[in-house]
Amino acid sequence: MQRLMSFVSGEWVEGNEPRSVLVNPATEEPLAETSTAGIDMAGALAYARERGGKALRTLSFAERGKVLRAMANAIHVRREELLALAVQNGGNTRSDAKFDVDGAMATLSAYADLGAELGERHLLPDGEGIQLGRTARLSGQHVLAPKRGAALHINAFNFPAWGLAEKAATALLAGVPVIAKPATSTALVAYRMTRGFLEDGAVPDGSLSLVAGPPGDLLEHLDRQDVLAFTGSSQTAMKLRGVDAALSRSVPVNVEADSLNASVLAPDVAAGSETEALFFADAVRDMTQKAGQKCTAIRRIIVPEARLSEVLAGFEERLADVTVGDPAREGVRMGPVTSADQLAEVRAGIEALAETTEPVFGGAGAIEPVGVDQGKGYFVGPVLRLARDPRAAAVHGREVFGPVATVIPYSGDPDEAAELVALGGGGLVTSVYSDDRGFVARAVPELAPHHGRLYLGSAKMASQSPGPGTVLPTLLHGGPGRAGGGQELGGLRGMRLYQQCTALQGDKSVLNALV
Amino acid sequence: MQRLMSFVSGEWVEGNEPRSVLVNPATEEPLAETSTAGIDMAGALAYARERGGKALRTLSFAERGKVLRAMANAIHVRREELLALAVQNGGNTRSDAKFDVDGAMATLSAYADLGAELGERHLLPDGEGIQLGRTARLSGQHVLAPKRGAALHINAFNFPAWGLAEKAATALLAGVPVIAKPATSTALVAYRMTRGFLEDGAVPDGSLSLVAGPPGDLLEHLDRQDVLAFTGSSQTAMKLRGVDAALSRSVPVNVEADSLNASVLAPDVAAGSETEALFFADAVRDMTQKAGQKCTAIRRIIVPEARLSEVLAGFEERLADVTVGDPAREGVRMGPVTSADQLAEVRAGIEALAETTEPVFGGAGAIEPVGVDQGKGYFVGPVLRLARDPRAAAVHGREVFGPVATVIPYSGDPDEAAELVALGGGGLVTSVYSDDRGFVARAVPELAPHHGRLYLGSAKMASQSPGPGTVLPTLLHGGPGRAGGGQELGGLRGMRLYQQCTALQGDKSVLNALV
Repeated sequence: MQRLMSFVSGEWVEGNEPRSVLVNPATEEPLAETSTAGIDMAGALAYARERGGKALRTLSFAERGKVLRAMANAIHVRREELLALAVQNGGNTRSDAKFDVDGAMATLSAYADLGAELGERHLLPDGEGIQLGRTARLSGQHVLAPKRGAALHINAFNFPAWGLAEKAATALLAGVPVIAKPATSTALVAYRMTRGFLEDGAVPDGSLSLVAGPPGDLLEHLDRQDVLAFTGSSQTAMKLRGVDAALSRSVPVNVEADSLNASVLAPDVAAGSETEALFFADAVRDMTQKAGQKCTAIRRIIVPEARLSEVLAGFEERLADVTVGDPAREGVRMGPVTSADQLAEVRAGIEALAETTEPVFGGAGAIEPVGVDQGKGYFVGPVLRLARDPRAAAVHGREVFGPVATVIPYSGDPDEAAELVALGGGGLVTSVYSDDRGFVARAVPELAPHHGRLYLGSAKMASQSPGPGTVLPTLLHGGPGRAGGGQELGGLRGMRLYQQCTALQGDKSVLNALV
Repeated sequence: MQRLMSFVSGEWVEGNEPRSVLVNPATEEPLAETSTAGIDMAGALAYARERGGKALRTLSFAERGKVLRAMANAIHVRREELLALAVQNGGNTRSDAKFDVDGAMATLSAYADLGAELGERHLLPDGEGIQLGRTARLSGQHVLAPKRGAALHINAFNFPAWGLAEKAATALLAGVPVIAKPATSTALVAYRMTRGFLEDGAVPDGSLSLVAGPPGDLLEHLDRQDVLAFTGSSQTAMKLRGVDAALSRSVPVNVEADSLNASVLAPDVAAGSETEALFFADAVRDMTQKAGQKCTAIRRIIVPEARLSEVLAGFEERLADVTVGDPAREGVRMGPVTSADQLAEVRAGIEALAETTEPVFGGAGAIEPVGVDQGKGYFVGPVLRLARDPRAAAVHGREVFGPVATVIPYSGDPDEAAELVALGGGGLVTSVYSDDRGFVARAVPELAPHHGRLYLGSAKMASQSPGPGTVLPTLLHGGPGRAGGGQELGGLRGMRLYQQCTALQGDKSVLNALV
């Protein structure tokens, strides 16, 4: 069986026994094994800081942009191989796999472009010069400088390619070396991708390391200039925030965690309209793409009471069309969830929802997947529930990370919709479908403080929209509260985590010479 | 004896016994007593969020600016009374008291001006519109909206007026209500100031509360849209970061903690030059102003080996001029530290420094203060030490929060100076004195990642400079690592803690109508 290695301190190393086994979640067939036991994590961090940090800091933004371009190219030339691995190890359909792998390329390319735009400088000005004294002579200028540590990226199992790439793009462009730790269960794609970066000489020595399994004692060695960024569950986030480095050495911990993203249908949207079609398409895509395992996927669908039965019928019809089975097989639209643990989690979540909701489609998710030996694979079918009690706690408090969503009726009043959405305790994205600017103008200020992104679906943008579930490199990704309070991407915004903002104060001509 | 009250849920309330006693640190005479025992902190938070938050959000930025202007005015008309209280309760000379009280007014006024500039809007755009689709139709626009919670401000004992004002200015302008908790030992000024705001009707109902003593169970009740900002010791910061609200509800904790701010004298600075005079004046001011109890005060003075004896002699001469005693007395330039605990801390710190440094001035800080009964008051004289070993751990690792600094020799190489400064593990501000742009250009990129501010002292700006110890509202205040990783002030930057950044994604004309 293939054995994964970790790339630390400039070389590929293998961990000691015991090893974890990576499987195909559709067939449960073992694919590879990995371990990080015995790897010198303190040494890995020191190497990244010393070699990688220095190497990146000698490069200008434009040159770092070229590094990202080379990484995107390394994915491009291995695209078919990576897609096949995503299908095998991730339970992805080919379309799901493209969403991950092409998303990785697109994000690296977008930050490569941003690097070219920022040009040959090393220190980035932040805002304009500020007059401080009686005359313009005494001046202030804020600058952004790369932190002198390393970035530890703890990535989620659902996006092994994009997750690694989007975090690495911002850190590397900022000038900070990366240690990427993919989730063990789906690490094959991240492993192959990283091998590709190194085979092609895309990244400077020390600037990208890979820990292909548990991080061991790495967290204990994080120091004052290091950064920790995490995507995953609230429980793990809580532990990471409590590590000594975060509590006593001010290591920032950026978290993307649970999010009960909502979709709000406004009362102005007519049956059969383009906006309604967008509303249905976005919700069904989010439920089924990657078997609902997207942190941005719609979990709560808030619908005017008056339209309820019609909308439920619309969903039933559309969900009935979804073929579930071995994602390697032609015609299958939804594969399994990625692991036995995830399947158990999703089933428990559906059970919790069932206590206060009614079934609309898919019952408890039992399904006979096509093209799979009986009893094999971590499959759950699309499940739509209806919350007659719009404030039922489980509906707003438990993220069921699978092909599961709940319809919630409301009066049609934007304030009521916003209040229901806010019960989610903070999310990554909520989408509002309306062609009534009055509704949008009332909903947006109420929804904004609880979200990192608001997607405003309308007839005019429907033909161009990638849907709310797609995270774009130019827009902020991250939400407050339950969603973790993190900020990723959004162009320059995502780079801030890796930069120190410093106010320079002095003679104006001295400051001008520096930036 | 005067009894302080807390202002919560729209009324002044008194805590139960036992009470803490506030004293005059020069005479140890009791001034007032206070307690917060039995106060309904959950209710206080709810009231602030509900009443205060709503009231502030109905105001535009310009209108919130007027609130801050009214607060500045309320201080202005009570200035003499507040200065007298600062002298009594803070151990401040009149000049120290002005630094605190006038600083509060200046910061409120600066944010009042910023409010006027931001105008009548409620939602602030963050950056430009972004084209997302094939055409300009599908667009993105980031906006900043006020969080829907309350801000708990835990302030430090050294700046009861400015500390409350600078934190409140940013939160209130952002649209978030404030619960201010001054340090108990010096709470008189904050108490009187807050009474003034309320007497003058300067602040909307619920937007400013005062907890005049320990916060009780307030921290336990912080929720997902709340914010915690703290200035004080690393130990307390560590505890605050570990509260459940921060770990599991993503409540952001902004920390300003210990900082071993440095001053670097470049080799080009000639004896008797204007730049050298600035170097001496800044260091001596920072050692003695507020008895060295400024988080921005210079603790490490890095001097070219070749100039060492000359510089030491310069300090001896200047420090010998400093009269220490009852700050209420004419001619006294430095008062006591603020409490018996602080005195014990400073003495222990000097002892720790003494293990690896030589005395230059003031020995261990024993002093006979003028105008004080023998044995009374928390006095320590100015202490200057010399570290023959430039890397001695205590010199770079222990912030002695009193009139204490250490001179450290270096070769004159900017990289070496920066390396020594970086041993401090991250600071609020470091100052570099040089008229050699080559030296400055080499030092700045090395120093920047370790600091929130760099003060570049030179002959050209000397006449206008307030010195590195003065925190300006337009420049960032906060540093990485040991300094806590926080970001305050800096104009709009300091407001970010209280705002959610949200990416709006939709039809361009819809977005344009919103911002």
